[in-house]
Amino acid sequence: MPFTLSPISHSIAEVDGFYCDGIRAGLKEDGLDLGFIYTDTPAHIAALFTTNRFQAAPLRHFQNHSIKKTNFILVNSKNANALTGARGVADIEEIVEALSRKWDLLNPVMSSTGVIGLPLPKEKIIAGALTFNLEERDDDRFARAIMTTDTFPKKVGFKVTLDDGSSFTVAGVAKGAGMIDPAMATMLAFIVTDGAVPFGDMEELLHEKVETTFNAISVDGDRSTNDTVFLLSNGKSGVYNREAFAFALERVMHELALLIVKDGEGAQKVVAFEVRGAKSREEAKRAAKALTNSLLVKTALFGEDPNWGRIAATIGASGVECDEERLLIAFGDVVVYNRGEITFDPATEERAHKVMERSEFRILCDLGMGEGSFTAYGCDLGYDYIKINAEYRT
Amino acid sequence: MPFTLSPISHSIAEVDGFYCDGIRAGLKEDGLDLGFIYTDTPAHIAALFTTNRFQAAPLRHFQNHSIKKTNFILVNSKNANALTGARGVADIEEIVEALSRKWDLLNPVMSSTGVIGLPLPKEKIIAGALTFNLEERDDDRFARAIMTTDTFPKKVGFKVTLDDGSSFTVAGVAKGAGMIDPAMATMLAFIVTDGAVPFGDMEELLHEKVETTFNAISVDGDRSTNDTVFLLSNGKSGVYNREAFAFALERVMHELALLIVKDGEGAQKVVAFEVRGAKSREEAKRAAKALTNSLLVKTALFGEDPNWGRIAATIGASGVECDEERLLIAFGDVVVYNRGEITFDPATEERAHKVMERSEFRILCDLGMGEGSFTAYGCDLGYDYIKINAEYRT
Repeated sequence: MPFTLSPISHSIAEVDGFYCDGIRAGLKEDGLDLGFIYTDTPAHIAALFTTNRFQAAPLRHFQNHSIKKTNFILVNSKNANALTGARGVADIEEIVEALSRKWDLLNPVMSSTGVIGLPLPKEKIIAGALTFNLEERDDDRFARAIMTTDTFPKKVGFKVTLDDGSSFTVAGVAKGAGMIDPAMATMLAFIVTDGAVPFGDMEELLHEKVETTFNAISVDGDRSTNDTVFLLSNGKSGVYNREAFAFALERVMHELALLIVKDGEGAQKVVAFEVRGAKSREEAKRAAKALTNSLLVKTALFGEDPNWGRIAATIGASGVECDEERLLIAFGDVVVYNRGEITFDPATEERAHKVMERSEFRILCDLGMGEGSFTAYGCDLGYDYIKINAEYRT
Repeated sequence: MPFTLSPISHSIAEVDGFYCDGIRAGLKEDGLDLGFIYTDTPAHIAALFTTNRFQAAPLRHFQNHSIKKTNFILVNSKNANALTGARGVADIEEIVEALSRKWDLLNPVMSSTGVIGLPLPKEKIIAGALTFNLEERDDDRFARAIMTTDTFPKKVGFKVTLDDGSSFTVAGVAKGAGMIDPAMATMLAFIVTDGAVPFGDMEELLHEKVETTFNAISVDGDRSTNDTVFLLSNGKSGVYNREAFAFALERVMHELALLIVKDGEGAQKVVAFEVRGAKSREEAKRAAKALTNSLLVKTALFGEDPNWGRIAATIGASGVECDEERLLIAFGDVVVYNRGEITFDPATEERAHKVMERSEFRILCDLGMGEGSFTAYGCDLGYDYIKINAEYRT
């Protein structure tokens, strides 16, 4: 491999030219709720947005302006600025204009997460943002400021060193804990690099890598109005190698995605559903995603019950080509159903149960129909998910 | 209307020529677990089965024999006889042969519900079934014998009287509480009539009426391996009118479907999601079904939180054509979002919350895009669903 990857101790704050911080603007009842990312060298920006038909105002604002280059992203939590119509976009214009009177901002971008359908408290946001210190580098405070029901901040970063000793850094911060499903990230993620990444590569690699990372996770099958992944490259290192960057980008996205599942509302387990032997990769993906979204599978995970019948039934219901004489199901390395043969005696059940007691494990489903494979990541569904979501607003 | 419908006090037991009962065969730890339906005059039988690719053994047995006429259905709970391979079908053959040595049975049919992937306890079933009294008429015991996590028996029936004073009866019994979703019944239902229904009408009307009844309900989005709706007509009344029969059949199916949602595992509320103004009926159905299956919507129902943003986000995520400037959302008659205008002040929120305190209510979503409409029926998701499903086997 013509490069090495080493984890960095912080995240965005360690990428050359990038600054960030989080403050309290009074949107939440307590805690940080407003943050920024600033780059002293304007960065190319590539974006992926939700497939939800009701795209939130910040997503429409970004697309209205066809932004390709920026030096500033403003992020608030608590209010999603979604289903807020023309007013939602006008509020953003007003906010970025106010900030542009103080600083030299190039195409400022806004990003929001929180409750849908409430007008943005723009006065509080402007007043708070005007207190930003653009020379601050605190990605922990930034990561906390963008949290909603998240229980911990999510950040990661790698330094990429090429064979000739030159290096660049790729780092990201994300939020997300509920309303997490396929079909795009269903969360906010901000990934920045000082690598000199050509814009074409940024867009191409972002689309390619999202499939196996953010699009491979699900907490609850709900897809938000605000899902966004931004990738910023300010090129300050002057260094670039496509293979190394692609590898590092995937690692950053994969780790952020798993952090989101790990923080799935009320979740105690991260489970990799590995579907192999499907007719096609598309069918493997469909079955794997169905497994991450089945309530009966998720409650069995919570109960640590190796109820493989629910796994089989979910695969069968997903509509993929399958045959009970060819299906194999294993919890970790414990095979519970082997191509028509039920291997589920009490001793096997106990071994499978032991696997499920772990906080992270793998469930393998080999369909035995072809060569397609896909791994999706899900979590259990317990009492706390209900508690969090039945009481979110009140 | 050239006919009148009047509810009957029992169900299958009141239909001329039909007999039924439930007994305890020792499959469950306690309670009734084995039942039968017998008709003294062989009946035409039409069937609808799950679209799950792993069809359970009883479904394969029925289709292997291309059964069109029968006089006997045997139903067990506790064991689904699913994912049991060739042995599952052979077990059924052995059971019906044993019973045929005692009684004159025409193409006996078996139906099973319960845990997937365990061999059928056929000795207990045979021993239990041989104690049946085929002259018994106890549809309450039959309805109880086929229950799994159901908390109450589900039965309904109507006497249909034509203008000329002649009459026939349509009645049904169902079970189902979890693993309930679209794409076919996802439950067991047995509907019988003494009407002289032509076989073509039986099949045609069963397919037609399932769309707005059993296929319009969802408890948890999971689709079982055993879903079955049987319709039996023994023609004993000699009476038939297509319009009257179609009407009565739909009523029976609709009421059984609502009883299933009402008994949705842990559910406390039945909610009708009425989607209007979609581009097509198909789109209305897609949006309505998505609402019944959204965890965030279901937990908001449980919390009695009129969180209309989740309703909007789910419609947007369902992929149907929509526009936030045309969408209208109402809880009962309380409009909370009106075509771009947020009408959600504290007084409105309180009124919407009051609607949600009811055990049954309607949520209207008018997309304002066309003429398509569909109503789907769902329920809330609370702590008890988790409790039931995390502890089902253990």
